Amino acid sequence: IEAEDAEAFEGLTRELHPADIADLIGLLQEEDREGMITLLGGALHSEVLAELEEDLLEDIIEAMEPAKVAKAVAELDTDDAAFLLEDLDAEKQAEILSYATIEDRLALRAALDFEEESAGRLMQREFFAAPAFWTVGQIIDRLRGTEELPDRFYEVFVVDPAFKPVGSVPLSTLLKSPRDTVIETIMTSRDMHPVPAVMDQEEVAYLFEQYNLISAPVVDDAERLIGMITVDDVVEMVREETQEDMLALGGVEADTGLSDTVFETVRSRFSWLAVNLATAILASLVIALFDAAIGQVVALAILMPIVASMGGNAGTQTLTVVVRSLATKDLTASNAARIVFREALVGFLNGVIFAVIMGALAGVWFYMSGWGGESEAMRLGGVVGAAMIINLLAAGLAGILIPIGLQRAGADPAVSSAVFVTTITDIVGFFVFLGLAAIVLL
Amino acid sequence: IEAEDAEAFEGLTRELHPADIADLIGLLQEEDREGMITLLGGALHSEVLAELEEDLLEDIIEAMEPAKVAKAVAELDTDDAAFLLEDLDAEKQAEILSYATIEDRLALRAALDFEEESAGRLMQREFFAAPAFWTVGQIIDRLRGTEELPDRFYEVFVVDPAFKPVGSVPLSTLLKSPRDTVIETIMTSRDMHPVPAVMDQEEVAYLFEQYNLISAPVVDDAERLIGMITVDDVVEMVREETQEDMLALGGVEADTGLSDTVFETVRSRFSWLAVNLATAILASLVIALFDAAIGQVVALAILMPIVASMGGNAGTQTLTVVVRSLATKDLTASNAARIVFREALVGFLNGVIFAVIMGALAGVWFYMSGWGGESEAMRLGGVVGAAMIINLLAAGLAGILIPIGLQRAGADPAVSSAVFVTTITDIVGFFVFLGLAAIVLL
Repeated sequence: IEAEDAEAFEGLTRELHPADIADLIGLLQEEDREGMITLLGGALHSEVLAELEEDLLEDIIEAMEPAKVAKAVAELDTDDAAFLLEDLDAEKQAEILSYATIEDRLALRAALDFEEESAGRLMQREFFAAPAFWTVGQIIDRLRGTEELPDRFYEVFVVDPAFKPVGSVPLSTLLKSPRDTVIETIMTSRDMHPVPAVMDQEEVAYLFEQYNLISAPVVDDAERLIGMITVDDVVEMVREETQEDMLALGGVEADTGLSDTVFETVRSRFSWLAVNLATAILASLVIALFDAAIGQVVALAILMPIVASMGGNAGTQTLTVVVRSLATKDLTASNAARIVFREALVGFLNGVIFAVIMGALAGVWFYMSGWGGESEAMRLGGVVGAAMIINLLAAGLAGILIPIGLQRAGADPAVSSAVFVTTITDIVGFFVFLGLAAIVLL
Repeated sequence: IEAEDAEAFEGLTRELHPADIADLIGLLQEEDREGMITLLGGALHSEVLAELEEDLLEDIIEAMEPAKVAKAVAELDTDDAAFLLEDLDAEKQAEILSYATIEDRLALRAALDFEEESAGRLMQREFFAAPAFWTVGQIIDRLRGTEELPDRFYEVFVVDPAFKPVGSVPLSTLLKSPRDTVIETIMTSRDMHPVPAVMDQEEVAYLFEQYNLISAPVVDDAERLIGMITVDDVVEMVREETQEDMLALGGVEADTGLSDTVFETVRSRFSWLAVNLATAILASLVIALFDAAIGQVVALAILMPIVASMGGNAGTQTLTVVVRSLATKDLTASNAARIVFREALVGFLNGVIFAVIMGALAGVWFYMSGWGGESEAMRLGGVVGAAMIINLLAAGLAGILIPIGLQRAGADPAVSSAVFVTTITDIVGFFVFLGLAAIVLL
C-alpha cells in the first residue's frame, strides 16, 4: 500500500480518527509496518499509539526513537502514557523516561508502580477538585484560568480539607446553576464511589456499570484523592474482561489475537490441547476397563459417545451460565445453595426427558439391527436411559460446583472449569453406561 | 425479610442506590416481591424500576397500578421510560399511556415505534443543541434558564440551520473557554459520529468503543438531530452483547438468567440439547458403519473418542477466536483469506505434533496390552496419527469457515456455529480413524 511518499500517507491519515489509523496499522503486514514508521520519520502521533493493540504497540515502540516516544508520552494523560510503557523492559522504560521532564517522570513512575489491571494503572492523575464552600462562579473562573486540566472530564470532585472526596458535581449541573450557588448545595454524594487505587479493574468495571458512572475519583490508602478514572477506559475494559471469560471457556489464552504469528498461536493453543489429550486418555482408560463387554456387544461402542456428548453439552450450558453469573455478581454466597439445587434439578429433568427419547431410540435401533432379541433391546434401552439421567445430573452439578469451587479457591472460574467439567461428564458417561451394560446385558 | 412495616423498609432503602435496591429485589422470592409492592402502596421509585432486570420488571409492572407506572414513566428520560414499557402487551401499554401527558405519550409512542435493539430505542429525546454562531456565554445563560434538560449530559451538539449535527463541544471545553468564544471555534467535528436511529445497538456500541465517545447525536432519515445516546447505556450493552456471544457459544439462549423458573430453564436448554442429540446420533451412525472392524479390534472403540475430542476442542478454540474477532471487526472481508489459511496451518501443525505424541502412545499401549504384534501396533499408531492430523486440519477450517459463512448468510455466527463445528469434527474424526483402520489393519 505505501511503498510511496510520507506526505501522501500523512494526508490520508490526517482526516482519519486515531482509532481508525491504529486499526489500519493492525491490518498491515509486519514489513510494511516497519517501512511505515521509517517513512514517518520514526514517529506516530501519540493518540494513535494510545489506540494500538498491546502486541503491536510493543513492536512499534521498539522501532521508534526513545526521544520521540518520550514526546508522545508527554502529550498523553497518565493512564494512556502508562499503557504505552507498561510492556517494555526496564531498560527501555528508563531510556524513554530520561527524555521526559521531572514531573512527568515522577507521575509515570508512580503509575507504573501500581499493579497491572489495578485502578491505579487505569487512572489519570489529571483531574479537577474543589472545596465544598466554593461557588459555581469561582469554579468556572478557575477552570478558565488553569492550564493543567485533563483533556476531558465530566465531573468536578468536591473534597474536604484532608483532600478526601466527599461528593461530585456533574458538569451539566454546574452549567445549569447560577454563579453564586455554593457547590455543597448541588453536589451529590449518593453517586460518589471512591475507588481505592489497589482495586482490581474488574471491580472498577462493576462499579461503573452498576451505578452508571461517567467518572470516579481514585483514592490512596489514606482516602486522599489522587486520580480519576473515566468511563471511556471502562467501556473497552468491560468488553475485554467479558471476552477473556469467553476465550477462556473456549480454551484459548486471553491475550491472543489474530495479529499473533502462526508459531505463537500453535504454542498458545497447544497447552490447552495437551490438557485435553490427557483427559481424553483418562476417559479411554475407563472405556478400556470394559473392552470385553464392547467385544461382545459392539452396539455399546456406537452408543457410548452419545451419552458422553450429551453430558458434555449439558455441563457446558450450566458452566456458561454460572461463569456469567459469577462475573455479574448475580451468583453469590447467599444464593449459591439454591442455584446448585436448581441446576441439579434442571439436569435431572432434562436427563429424564432425554432418557425416554434415547432409551426408546436405542432399543428400537438395537432390535431392528438384529443385534439381539426383544428382551436385550429393552434392557439396552434401559441402560442408555439410566446412564443419561445420571450423566446429565452429574453435568449439572459439575457445571456449577466446579466454577464456584475454583472461585472460592481464588482461581479464575472461567479458565480451567471447562476441562474439568467435560472430563467428569466423559468419565461418568462412559463408566455408568458401560458399567451398567456389563451388569445388565452380560 | 419484610413481613414488617413499610416505613422500616423505606428507611432501609432510602440510603441505598437504586441499582442496589433493584439487585435486592432480584434476590427476593416471588411471594416476598409481591408483598413488598403492596407494602409500598403499589409503587416503586422510577429509578429503581429502570435498574431492574427485564423479566422481573414485567412481573412488577403487572403488579403495580397503571397510574403509578405512568407517574414513574413521566419522571424518567425517554430511553428508560421506553425500557419500562417495551415488554408489556399493547393493551397494558395503552392503559398506562392514557395516564400520561400528551407530549410524554407522543414521545414514548415514537420511541416504541423503533425496533428493539436499535439506536432509536436506546436514545433519549432530551438533549441540548445550539447553532454554531452562539457564544459560550449565550449557551451558559440558556442552560441556566431552561427547565427541559436531560438529567445528565456531557456535550452540547452544534447544529446547522437544517438541525443537522455538525459538531460537538464537550462541557469541559465549554467551561474552560471565555464567555465570548464563538462555539464554532471550539467545537470538534472529528469526534462527531451521528448515529442513524435505525442503527443496530451492536454497531452503536462499536462506535462508542472505537472512538471513546461519551455521548452521540441520533439523527433521522433526513439527518436531522432527534435524540442522544449516552455512554452509561452503552457500558451495560457492551457487556450484554459480549455475554450473548459467550452464552450462544455455550449453547444457552441469550435472555436466560438465574431468575428464570426451573421449567423455563429446562425448556430453554432442551432445544439445544435436542440439536446435539441429533448430531450425536449422526456421529454414531458413522461409527455403526464400522461395527465389524470394532468387533475385531476393540482398541478402536477405546481410541476413537480421543481423536474426536481433540478435533472438537481444536475447533472450539478457533471458533471462539473467530467469533470474537468478527464482533470486534478485527476479521473482515479484506483479511479473511489470510486468516483462513493461518488457522488451517495452525490446525495442521498442532495436528502433526499430537499425531506424533498420540500415535506413539497408541502403538505402545496396543503392543503392551497384547492386542496385537509389533507390526499391527505400528500400523495402529500410524492410523491414529493420520486421523489426528486430518481432524485437526478439518477443525481449523470448520472453526473459521462456518462462522464466516453464517455471518455472510446474515445469521449470528455465535449462535449456531458451535454445533456445526463439533458435528464436523466428530464425523470426520470417527470416519477417518475407523475408515483408515479398516483399510490398514484388517
